[in-house]
Amino acid sequence: MPRILDGKKIAQNLKDQLKIEIENIKIKSNRVPGLAVIQVGNVAASSVYVKAKTKAAKEVGIDVIDHHLVESVNQDDLINLINQLNNNDDVNGILVQLPLPKTINEEVVLNSIAPEKDADGFHPLNVGKLSISQKNDESLMIPCTPYGCLLLLRELNINLAGKNAVVIGRSNIVGKPMAQLLLKESCTVTTVHSKTINIESICKKADILIAAIGKPEFVNKDWVKEGAIIIDVGINRIKINEEKSKLVGDVLFSEVEHKVSAISPVPGGVGPMTIACLLRNTTAAFKLKFID
Amino acid sequence: MPRILDGKKIAQNLKDQLKIEIENIKIKSNRVPGLAVIQVGNVAASSVYVKAKTKAAKEVGIDVIDHHLVESVNQDDLINLINQLNNNDDVNGILVQLPLPKTINEEVVLNSIAPEKDADGFHPLNVGKLSISQKNDESLMIPCTPYGCLLLLRELNINLAGKNAVVIGRSNIVGKPMAQLLLKESCTVTTVHSKTINIESICKKADILIAAIGKPEFVNKDWVKEGAIIIDVGINRIKINEEKSKLVGDVLFSEVEHKVSAISPVPGGVGPMTIACLLRNTTAAFKLKFID
Repeated sequence: MPRILDGKKIAQNLKDQLKIEIENIKIKSNRVPGLAVIQVGNVAASSVYVKAKTKAAKEVGIDVIDHHLVESVNQDDLINLINQLNNNDDVNGILVQLPLPKTINEEVVLNSIAPEKDADGFHPLNVGKLSISQKNDESLMIPCTPYGCLLLLRELNINLAGKNAVVIGRSNIVGKPMAQLLLKESCTVTTVHSKTINIESICKKADILIAAIGKPEFVNKDWVKEGAIIIDVGINRIKINEEKSKLVGDVLFSEVEHKVSAISPVPGGVGPMTIACLLRNTTAAFKLKFID
Repeated sequence: MPRILDGKKIAQNLKDQLKIEIENIKIKSNRVPGLAVIQVGNVAASSVYVKAKTKAAKEVGIDVIDHHLVESVNQDDLINLINQLNNNDDVNGILVQLPLPKTINEEVVLNSIAPEKDADGFHPLNVGKLSISQKNDESLMIPCTPYGCLLLLRELNINLAGKNAVVIGRSNIVGKPMAQLLLKESCTVTTVHSKTINIESICKKADILIAAIGKPEFVNKDWVKEGAIIIDVGINRIKINEEKSKLVGDVLFSEVEHKVSAISPVPGGVGPMTIACLLRNTTAAFKLKFID
């Protein structure tokens, strides 16, 4: 039987540690880290994510400042709000929930977040620092989803150096930073994507396979090597029948689980880790400003 | 017979284009791009590179401002000089020749260069922008050596999408940005390095192999696939006898050339392209400031 990488439990451990750390911070500095969460409009999935992030932040003792703006908000007004938050010492992390309405330039908005408050790690300065640094260390703002994947891998307590890692997908949010993180762990890293020829045979050679494609149950047992480690980043809602739907990953779990040594489930795998890493980044930003 | 990628000739074409462009810029704006070249100490190889870069810049009509500092220069004085150059409108590109003396923190110095004058493309903000952008477009400051490699590949007029590209080496100067560039050309990209297991067999599957290891003639015919394209980034000086030495690449050219469809020689391959790309970056920086 494979090891099921229980993201819910591992994320809870991380949150428990953060909670203790924040209690200590409060004793020492009489302050706690603050996270500003900005949501624009009412996309249902965004509301779910914002609620989950807010709840988790409060659980560990982070102050949450919610800004829920109307769909029709002006881009300049949004950037003005971000500038205010950039200058507010009570705010250590700023999160703009994506996607933004099409009238707003996402890149311009994300780049307006002060790099030292960039809890999502999407600002180009943080992307560059991540690429340049030799180690995946505490001073970096690492995008939350790939960082969560790395923490799942670390739970296995194996030597990652020299492992053949294949990342499916090349997005700025997951694929590209994931490849950077694995390279720094000294994996041999291959990035495959929609233009890749023989994608299945490349994936089948992977010791570690990260699936971040966004296609439900796309990776089946023919894609994976016996004994491989699988991290499933996908969160896809599929219909079971007229009335019911369920969440599935990018990996056909029921088929693949019999072949691999470890696998993260969906839900309960990468998702909770992403949120825990957001809290970690916010706390790290606080520490860099007020403690280090 | 393989196509020999004549970097000297291709770089000359690029320089000829830049020369015409700079003449037109001068007519329009009564200005020319300016490049500040800073050398610290007297490392022989650095002097050779600085001389070659200065000569090439002058050839295309770029104004060169040379700053040759003594080995014992204080880090703060060096950074003060860079700050002056950052604020000097006649300077569009700033190049600090590496390596710097061990008493100086290279990272701090490079990060003090204004990103918009960062002709080498090493500033984390430019590294991040390169990673995030969807295309290898004109607005980016792309590190000169990998950019030169890409221009050599483009000379082949083949569709790079879907090609299996393997980059040997993971330095910040070559390997990492090279992988980013190839990914944006929609290659399937694998980065291999000193910790990689079965490196030879991975390289042997490459349609495009970029060798940036720094080990003379390390890649022999057993590493390459029949018909592959080889770009050799290495510049290694080896002794022939007591008196004589010669430059060789990371690839055993005499053996490999019979097996491949295209290969860049050393010298006369990537080296001249690196210099041409420095001039291109300086000109691009000028255009972004004064023309676009």
